[in-house]
Amino acid sequence: MAKLNLVENAINRLVPTEVNGKEGIPFKGVHKYTPQGKKASPKIFSANQYPLDGNKVLKSLRDAFEFCGIKDGMTVSTHHHFRNGDLVANMMFDVFEEMKLKDLMWFPSASFPCHIKAIDLMEKGIIHHIEGSMNGPLGDYCTEGKMKGLGVLRSHGGRWQAIQDGEVKIDIAVIAAPSADPFGNANGVNGEAACGSLNFALADSTYADRVIVVTDNLVPFPCIPWQIQGNNVDAVVVVDKIGDPSKIVSGTTEITKSPDRLLIAQLVADFLEKTEIMRDGFSFQAGSGGISLAFVLFLKEKMKKRGIKARFVRGGSTKYLVEMLDEGLTDYILDGQTFDLKGVESMRDNPRHIPTSPFTSYNYNGKGFFGTFVDAVVLGATEVDVNFNANVVTHSDGRLLHGIGGWQNCLFSKCTILAVPAIRDRIPVIVDEVTTLTGPQELIDVIVTERGIAINPLRKDLIEKTKGSGLPIRDIRDIQKEVDEICGGKPKPLKRGEEVVAVVKWVDGTILDSVFKIG
Amino acid sequence: MAKLNLVENAINRLVPTEVNGKEGIPFKGVHKYTPQGKKASPKIFSANQYPLDGNKVLKSLRDAFEFCGIKDGMTVSTHHHFRNGDLVANMMFDVFEEMKLKDLMWFPSASFPCHIKAIDLMEKGIIHHIEGSMNGPLGDYCTEGKMKGLGVLRSHGGRWQAIQDGEVKIDIAVIAAPSADPFGNANGVNGEAACGSLNFALADSTYADRVIVVTDNLVPFPCIPWQIQGNNVDAVVVVDKIGDPSKIVSGTTEITKSPDRLLIAQLVADFLEKTEIMRDGFSFQAGSGGISLAFVLFLKEKMKKRGIKARFVRGGSTKYLVEMLDEGLTDYILDGQTFDLKGVESMRDNPRHIPTSPFTSYNYNGKGFFGTFVDAVVLGATEVDVNFNANVVTHSDGRLLHGIGGWQNCLFSKCTILAVPAIRDRIPVIVDEVTTLTGPQELIDVIVTERGIAINPLRKDLIEKTKGSGLPIRDIRDIQKEVDEICGGKPKPLKRGEEVVAVVKWVDGTILDSVFKIG
Repeated sequence: MAKLNLVENAINRLVPTEVNGKEGIPFKGVHKYTPQGKKASPKIFSANQYPLDGNKVLKSLRDAFEFCGIKDGMTVSTHHHFRNGDLVANMMFDVFEEMKLKDLMWFPSASFPCHIKAIDLMEKGIIHHIEGSMNGPLGDYCTEGKMKGLGVLRSHGGRWQAIQDGEVKIDIAVIAAPSADPFGNANGVNGEAACGSLNFALADSTYADRVIVVTDNLVPFPCIPWQIQGNNVDAVVVVDKIGDPSKIVSGTTEITKSPDRLLIAQLVADFLEKTEIMRDGFSFQAGSGGISLAFVLFLKEKMKKRGIKARFVRGGSTKYLVEMLDEGLTDYILDGQTFDLKGVESMRDNPRHIPTSPFTSYNYNGKGFFGTFVDAVVLGATEVDVNFNANVVTHSDGRLLHGIGGWQNCLFSKCTILAVPAIRDRIPVIVDEVTTLTGPQELIDVIVTERGIAINPLRKDLIEKTKGSGLPIRDIRDIQKEVDEICGGKPKPLKRGEEVVAVVKWVDGTILDSVFKIG
Repeated sequence: MAKLNLVENAINRLVPTEVNGKEGIPFKGVHKYTPQGKKASPKIFSANQYPLDGNKVLKSLRDAFEFCGIKDGMTVSTHHHFRNGDLVANMMFDVFEEMKLKDLMWFPSASFPCHIKAIDLMEKGIIHHIEGSMNGPLGDYCTEGKMKGLGVLRSHGGRWQAIQDGEVKIDIAVIAAPSADPFGNANGVNGEAACGSLNFALADSTYADRVIVVTDNLVPFPCIPWQIQGNNVDAVVVVDKIGDPSKIVSGTTEITKSPDRLLIAQLVADFLEKTEIMRDGFSFQAGSGGISLAFVLFLKEKMKKRGIKARFVRGGSTKYLVEMLDEGLTDYILDGQTFDLKGVESMRDNPRHIPTSPFTSYNYNGKGFFGTFVDAVVLGATEVDVNFNANVVTHSDGRLLHGIGGWQNCLFSKCTILAVPAIRDRIPVIVDEVTTLTGPQELIDVIVTERGIAINPLRKDLIEKTKGSGLPIRDIRDIQKEVDEICGGKPKPLKRGEEVVAVVKWVDGTILDSVFKIG
C-alpha cells in the first residue's frame, strides 16, 4: 500500500487524507460538518428489460451475476441479518472464484467468522478489500496489514449515509431472503431462515444498480410484507438453504449471571428511575448483551411498580422486549434487528412491533433521525477514557474485534449510558486514552461500572439530579485509580506500527480515527 | 405561448418537440423506448440542520414555506388522496398570494373542481401552469388555451416515472396528512380526514428537496404506520381541518342500476369465467365506477359457486373488495387508493390489505411492475376506436374531462377489458378515430358493450377460447355500425384549433398525443 498522508482531525487523531482512492474528510467535531451535494442516483431501467410475467427467477447465482454484468473491480454488497449463520456470502465467493474475477470490493453490512473464506479470496486477488466491520480472523488479517485496501468501519447509520451520499457505489447487491416471490419482493419474517427484517439491505436495494435476491423459500407473488421491493430487484435465485437457523437467531438470549454485571444492570435501572428519565411516555434502547438484558428486567419491574408505560422501546429485540410489548408496558417496539425467535414471531404477528431501517433510525445525513430523541440508551464499550471518549472496535491490544453496529448512532440519545465492567480479563477498562476513538466524549453522558457511576462533567443537569439520590456517583478518575491498583498498574501502552490499516468513520462520513498495523 | 414545433410520433399523432422548455420525446411504440441516465437525486441534508428533539412543528404554512426557501419559479406538489374534499391546496394558494410569489408550477397528483382557485392564481401570474390531470373548470381553462404553459397529463405511474427520472424536479412537496407526528411521520389511516394510504405522495416525499406535512391530527412520535417517513420531512404544520371527510371517502359506493350497464358487468364476468381467466390463484383489478362494482359482485358469485380463490385483488378498494377479503375469496388486496370507509378501515386493521405505491404497481421505468401480470383488468373509456385505441382524457368535444389515473398503467394487464356503453348521451362511443389517444391498440384486448363483446384481432388466443362459448362475440365494426344507425350517423368530427394546449404522456415519459385548443 502506498504511504498515506496523515493529518490530525478535530480531536487530534491522525487520519489519512485519502481512503481507497477517495478523498478522506477529517472529523470536524460533533454536529460540525454539513455535507453538500446530492444523493446517489442509480441507473434508470425499463420494464421492457424484464420479464412481463414478473418471473425473474434465474437458474443459478452465477447466471444472476452474469445477467447483472459482474466485472472486475466492482463493488458487491451483502447483509448480515443471518449473522454467523450466513451461507449466501460463501456461495457468492464460490461464484467469484469460478468466474475468475479480480479486485472486487466486498461491502457487507457486517462480516462474521463464517466468512473466513474471504481471506482466501483476498490472497488470490479476487477480493481487493473489505469495507465493513471485521472481527475474528478477518479482523486479524486487516490489523496485521495484509489487506490490499484500507478497512473502513462504519456504523449502521454511517453505512446508509455512505451509500446515500454516493461515497460507496454498490454495483451489485446480493440479498439473502428467508422469503421471496419470483418478482423479487422479499422479507425476513417467514421461512426456515427467518431473521426478522431485511432492513440492513434496504439501502443496498434502493441505491445499487443491480440487485440479486437469493432465497430458499419461494412463495407466489405477492411476498408480503415486501420489506425489499421487487421493483428494485433484477434477479431471483432459489437455493436449498440460505442460512443456519440455529446461528441466525438463538432460541433464547441469556441474561448475565455474573454478580458484578447484575450490579451494573441494577445501577443503570436505578439511575433511570432516580433521574426520572423513566417516566410515562419515555423511550429507551438496550442491546442484546447480558448486562442490557438484565437491565431491561430490572427496569420493567420498576415500570410495573410505578405504573409507567413507555411510548416506544428501541430494539434489537429479544423476548424480554416482546414481553414488555405484550404486557402493555410500551406502545411500540421500533426494531432494527431481532435477536431471538420471540422477536421474529412478534415482528411477524404484532402490528406494534415495527421494523426500522438505518434510514429511519440512524442516518445522520438526512432530515434528522429518531436516535436523537430516544430518552436513554444503554451500550457497551471495550474501553472508555477519563475524558469520556470510548472505544468499541478494538481492544487494548489494538486488534479489530467488533463492528460499530448502531453504537455510534445511538450515542445521540438524550442520555447515553455505557454500562461496562471496570475490569475485563484483568485489564482496566477505564484508561487514560482509548486505543481507537469510536465515540467522542461530548456524546457519552454516563459510565456505569460495578464500582460506581461516573457522570460526564458536561451533564451538569444529571449531576444535579442525582445529588442526594443515594446513587454511587463517583469521579471517573477515582474509579480508574481504584481499578489500576487492583490490576497492578495501568494497562501497558500499545506498541503499534506507523501504517494505517483501517479507518473509523463518523456518522457524517468524516474520519474519526485510524487503526494501525500491529504484529 | 410560442409556436411549438410538431412532429408525428410512432402512431401518427402530432406532438410537440418541446414541453415547457424541456425536450419532448415522441412516443416510439409500446415497449420500444428505453431510457438512459440516472435517477433524480435530491439534496443531501444533515441532522445538524433539524431540531434534535425531533420537533419540526412550525407555526404556520407560511413559516414552513419560508423555512423551505420558497422562491419564484419553483415547482410545488400536492397529492389528491382527499379528492374533491381537499382543503390544503387552497391554504397553500392563499400563502402563495400572501407572499406575492410568481411563476410557480403546481404539480398535483390530480386536481379537482375544489381547486378552482388555481385559475385565479394563474390569471395573476402566481401559478404559471399546472402539470397534472385537469377536469371541470381547470380542464376548460386549459383546453381554451388560457394557461401559460402546456398541460402535461400523466398516469399515476407516469408521474412517479417523471419524478424518478428527474423530468419534473419538485422543489417543495406539500403533503396533507390525516395523522402525523412532530417528526413528520404520517399516514392516511387514522384521523378525521382518513383516506387510506398517502402513497400518491410517496415519490414527492422521496425526491423533493423539501417536504411540508400539514395535519389536523398530531400524535406523539411514532405515528405508525409511517407511510410517509419523517426522515424525508422538513416541517410539520398543524391546522384545524385538512379535508372534508364526506368528500374524501363516501360512506357507500354505488352500484349501477342501469340495465345496460348491469348487462355489461355481467358480460365481463361471463367473459372471465368462459375464458378461464377466473381460476384458482388468479388476480384482477376493477375500478370504482358503477359497472366495475357490479362486475365485482357478479364475479364474486361465480367464484363462490366454483370454489375459486384469487391470489390478489388490485384496488382502488371498496367495501365489495373488502368483503371478498373478509370472506376468504382473495389472499390479499393490493390497494392504490381507498374509495370508501370500509376500505379505509380494512387497510388500517387487516394486515392482508396492503397499501401500494405507484412505484410498486405502476412505474414503467423500473425493473418491472406488477401491473404487467395482473390477469385481468376492467376499465372505462370515453371513446374507443375501431382499431382498439382508446381515449380517457377528453370527450368527443375535445375538452379535458378526466385525469389518466392508473388507467394507462393498468393496460399492461394480461387481459385488458374496456367495459363501456356503446352509446353515451346519444353519442356513439365506438368511433373511427379517438379524439385523444390515451391507450394504444396493442394493449387493449377486449371491449365489452351492452351490444356485444369485441376482441382485438391481435388476441387470437382469446378469440379461440371464446369460440362456442355462447358469449356474444362480435366484430367491433358491426357494433359501431349498429350504434351509428341508432344515433343517426357518426359523431360530428371535432373542429379543433391548431394550437397545442396539453400533451398526454405515455408511461415511459414519451409523448403519446396532444390536446388542441378549442372554443
